[in-house]
Amino acid sequence: MSVRGVLRLGEMQIRVLDMAAAKQHYGTRMGLHEMMTDDDGLVYYKAWAEQDHHSIVLRESDSSGLDHLAFKVYNDATLDELEKGIIDFGIAVEKIEAGIYPKSGRRLKFTLPTGHEMHLYAEKVQVGNSMGTLNPGVLPDEGIVRGFRINGLDHCFIVGPNAKQNLKLFTEVFDFNFTERVCDPDGNELLMFVSCSSRAHDIAFGENPEPGLLHHASFRLENTQDHVHAADLIGKYSIPVEMNDRHGVTQVKTVYYFDPSGNRNEVFVDGYLYYPDSPLLTWTIDNLAHAAFSQSLRVPESFLGTYT
Amino acid sequence: MSVRGVLRLGEMQIRVLDMAAAKQHYGTRMGLHEMMTDDDGLVYYKAWAEQDHHSIVLRESDSSGLDHLAFKVYNDATLDELEKGIIDFGIAVEKIEAGIYPKSGRRLKFTLPTGHEMHLYAEKVQVGNSMGTLNPGVLPDEGIVRGFRINGLDHCFIVGPNAKQNLKLFTEVFDFNFTERVCDPDGNELLMFVSCSSRAHDIAFGENPEPGLLHHASFRLENTQDHVHAADLIGKYSIPVEMNDRHGVTQVKTVYYFDPSGNRNEVFVDGYLYYPDSPLLTWTIDNLAHAAFSQSLRVPESFLGTYT
Amino acid sequence: MSVRGVLRLGEMQIRVLDMAAAKQHYGTRMGLHEMMTDDDGLVYYKAWAEQDHHSIVLRESDSSGLDHLAFKVYNDATLDELEKGIIDFGIAVEKIEAGIYPKSGRRLKFTLPTGHEMHLYAEKVQVGNSMGTLNPGVLPDEGIVRGFRINGLDHCFIVGPNAKQNLKLFTEVFDFNFTERVCDPDGNELLMFVSCSSRAHDIAFGENPEPGLLHHASFRLENTQDHVHAADLIGKYSIPVEMNDRHGVTQVKTVYYFDPSGNRNEVFVDGYLYYPDSPLLTWTIDNLAHAAFSQSLRVPESFLGTYT
Amino acid sequence: MSVRGVLRLGEMQIRVLDMAAAKQHYGTRMGLHEMMTDDDGLVYYKAWAEQDHHSIVLRESDSSGLDHLAFKVYNDATLDELEKGIIDFGIAVEKIEAGIYPKSGRRLKFTLPTGHEMHLYAEKVQVGNSMGTLNPGVLPDEGIVRGFRINGLDHCFIVGPNAKQNLKLFTEVFDFNFTERVCDPDGNELLMFVSCSSRAHDIAFGENPEPGLLHHASFRLENTQDHVHAADLIGKYSIPVEMNDRHGVTQVKTVYYFDPSGNRNEVFVDGYLYYPDSPLLTWTIDNLAHAAFSQSLRVPESFLGTYT
Repeated sequence: MSVRGVLRLGEMQIRVLDMAAAKQHYGTRMGLHEMMTDDDGLVYYKAWAEQDHHSIVLRESDSSGLDHLAFKVYNDATLDELEKGIIDFGIAVEKIEAGIYPKSGRRLKFTLPTGHEMHLYAEKVQVGNSMGTLNPGVLPDEGIVRGFRINGLDHCFIVGPNAKQNLKLFTEVFDFNFTERVCDPDGNELLMFVSCSSRAHDIAFGENPEPGLLHHASFRLENTQDHVHAADLIGKYSIPVEMNDRHGVTQVKTVYYFDPSGNRNEVFVDGYLYYPDSPLLTWTIDNLAHAAFSQSLRVPESFLGTYT
Repeated sequence: MSVRGVLRLGEMQIRVLDMAAAKQHYGTRMGLHEMMTDDDGLVYYKAWAEQDHHSIVLRESDSSGLDHLAFKVYNDATLDELEKGIIDFGIAVEKIEAGIYPKSGRRLKFTLPTGHEMHLYAEKVQVGNSMGTLNPGVLPDEGIVRGFRINGLDHCFIVGPNAKQNLKLFTEVFDFNFTERVCDPDGNELLMFVSCSSRAHDIAFGENPEPGLLHHASFRLENTQDHVHAADLIGKYSIPVEMNDRHGVTQVKTVYYFDPSGNRNEVFVDGYLYYPDSPLLTWTIDNLAHAAFSQSLRVPESFLGTYT
Repeated sequence: MSVRGVLRLGEMQIRVLDMAAAKQHYGTRMGLHEMMTDDDGLVYYKAWAEQDHHSIVLRESDSSGLDHLAFKVYNDATLDELEKGIIDFGIAVEKIEAGIYPKSGRRLKFTLPTGHEMHLYAEKVQVGNSMGTLNPGVLPDEGIVRGFRINGLDHCFIVGPNAKQNLKLFTEVFDFNFTERVCDPDGNELLMFVSCSSRAHDIAFGENPEPGLLHHASFRLENTQDHVHAADLIGKYSIPVEMNDRHGVTQVKTVYYFDPSGNRNEVFVDGYLYYPDSPLLTWTIDNLAHAAFSQSLRVPESFLGTYT
Repeated sequence: MSVRGVLRLGEMQIRVLDMAAAKQHYGTRMGLHEMMTDDDGLVYYKAWAEQDHHSIVLRESDSSGLDHLAFKVYNDATLDELEKGIIDFGIAVEKIEAGIYPKSGRRLKFTLPTGHEMHLYAEKVQVGNSMGTLNPGVLPDEGIVRGFRINGLDHCFIVGPNAKQNLKLFTEVFDFNFTERVCDPDGNELLMFVSCSSRAHDIAFGENPEPGLLHHASFRLENTQDHVHAADLIGKYSIPVEMNDRHGVTQVKTVYYFDPSGNRNEVFVDGYLYYPDSPLLTWTIDNLAHAAFSQSLRVPESFLGTYT
């Protein structure tokens, strides 16, 4: 009990058009730590505060977008339980042996109703956050926290058809909590946010005709000042910014920007503390401006229609 | 799965020597919202962001200290499971009917190995955070967030004999995670921190010959600036301060102060994000200064020996 | 020496179309303190931390815009010196007796080259910041700091013809320092920022064919968190926002929004520490995005052409 | 007018017992930039945001303390005016040619009534803050802001006999403003704070029988989060901390700590905006706790009696 089952979004593999530009973006500028390049040229990154070996994997391709997303679960037995649940839900599951994905234990691989490839795994090599576990102190050494001062990969927003089936899978099989939704005038959910933690979302779904698309990958910052600092660096590097505002939904303070391949990134901070007995919050589409960007009430057209 | 079982510290009933002074402290100054006074004169408070009817209960008495602490659990079925576990652990459980404790569903009542009265409950009347659940926005109306700008009751630190039995009960029966510990030179745990959330502690235990004592009740703030603001108000009201520093353990930024009855309170902010696969952190007693107050490395004698 | 001569922008009289709406905006929402209404119906406001009786005066009219701006100077002798300087500069000066403007000592009244009415005065009734001068403490009582948590009126940006003559008047007669400028490809100044303090601007000028227009009135916040809080309130009240970003020029973190009459307001925080030996900073018009809104690099058309 | 005359504390030359330890403290840990070592082995530092070549000079000696403090003035003519004023005040002035002090124009050298060597100078080589003056942007490159993230040398507190004569010299000859004072029951000033800027102090004086002693050298931080960050680093490096609190006087948020030679340093942030027409604030000695450390109301004995 307490925090068990599915723990967190632990990995996203993202396609980029130009690896050198992507490495400058995710590594030099955002400040993620480059951990390794594998035999196929994929590059692996972690944020400094993460314990596991990596959370972001970049693959050079002629199209941008998301190869897969992967959640870490509590332990190996959880994988067995979830495998049964996914199959009962009507989704085929492929079992991937340990080591096929570098530094990773065995995985369950399947396709979400929205057309996204998703993995579940219980083990990944832990390399720690550089501070050790004996008298660790409170701050890593100078230079470890760098660039945008990102603490970790946090969540993602994906779009595709049958988004409500994703909701059903995540809430009924994965035991996520349904936290917030944006509805059309008939009360149909257009955007759905679900949580497996004490934050208001660990993944979100939007209805979209084309399957398998990524709205954004989101990274967690530590405090408001670091949010300002990240936004300043984004401007310094002339990285394209879509919005810098607060979401009504989840209440996080956000900056949306694009990597050189057009994949949307987010850095955010804050957001309310969520518990399973927190009420489901509903936003109506006529209140979209307050739901989306609650400070400026401006919703760029791109935000509702640009995916990779 | 995900966040299930025991959810959070939902209630502390604290004895105060003078109710008028206590109401000024917890209500007027700290800014908790007074919700009701019951027939026995007990006064009930909630922090603005909490959904449930109350989290702090004050009872006038000729001694200060803790009457009971209570955790909220996921649902009624959880109570049944936990009841069995507690009894199997060797602790007697008293079943309290719904309504005996105001606004509360049925409770399990039992005594911790350290001598503290503890309750578990699955239901409490929800009154919300004033923002509603339909297009709630991101900020309550002017005046709702006031005083120390406290968001919620967060955790407590209790001391007594057999503290390691508390650890065993919480980790084995309640499925809490063991997050951090301070050990003597022989590796025996002196202070133990456990979590049922993605924060580094929801309750902590210290070994002490006298049973049933309270080290502190802790309240959560929203950001660093509010932490400074609370510390400024504490000084403005000449409330006795023990320390204003950062803990090495849990990494929270803290202020310790005393209510007029001598009960220790804490307001804090920050702390790292904890997951069940985060490593157990160990501090050795020769590093107590870094573990306790990592900025000033000063550990007041009172901090290690003053309880109510 | 040290800080002498012209001290600060001490007063702006702003025309509003509907006084009730304006009072809700500047008083209830922004949180300025309403100090009095005079016989002509003008309403006087101060920010909580200001010592003088008022800094903002609202006058109901059928057009929005700026009636006058007024700087406070060090003492009465300064007025005599400045009067001579203004006349020598070729501008006529009208002498207004004490008391004509409520709570104010005698004034010099004249028209800037850009067509704006400007006043200088050395005395205004001081009402203090509510904290007293004997053992004042560090925080006013609960409720004094409210709304947007504005500390004071800070600066204004005005546009008109002959803006460079304003620059000449302020730097040569008023001894302001020329801090930053935005230039066209021929090196002509389009936007000019000048300071009489240790901040990077106390007033700014832009070239514009029509005289006497207001770009914005700007209010100072205390810290980054209050900046976020003000932006949240602006959204809560659905106040029209133009931009929320950081200026390259002066480095302040800003939110631009409009009062119900269309007058542009700004709340800001931070900015670098300026000294008279700080170098003049030059921005070229091809770098306008970085100069104007350095995080998003987005310059709304309205920002360059909407005045009242 | 506006900001003229004496501009700021531009230089402190501090004696240290061990240069290697001092370089680790001021350079590696605090993050000041080492600019040069002169032929006599003196080491010169600047904070990143300062424009001038250096502000801190370290000299190895067998006693710690202050060699001299130096204020920068507006221009060479100011030196002539001040020279006359100092002599008229009854203090002998030595004229030091340009270049005797490295990178510095000519200086006036004299001894304060409290026995401290003070200099005035109008010129020092400017090296800039690394951002240039043409389209400078808002943030320096990664690594420039490091260690404690100090923006600049800010002020100092010195003690000696005849402290009131210092007050008279600074207010009457240097035109500083008398901003705050702590008085004994007879109304005699014990501690005096004066300003030549829009901050509440640029130097402060305390009465003490022994002349020429340093209470502390103070460095300015940019925001509250950096203040927390500096305090965290101070703890990480086990640097001795005296207090981490807010001053009632000047309202700055402070941390006091000691360099390896026992010289007291301060890093601070915030403080109210001061103008020459701000009222003089008076604290009575029975309110010393609120005046000194307004959050904890704890005044360490060392703070009132340990000088170098």
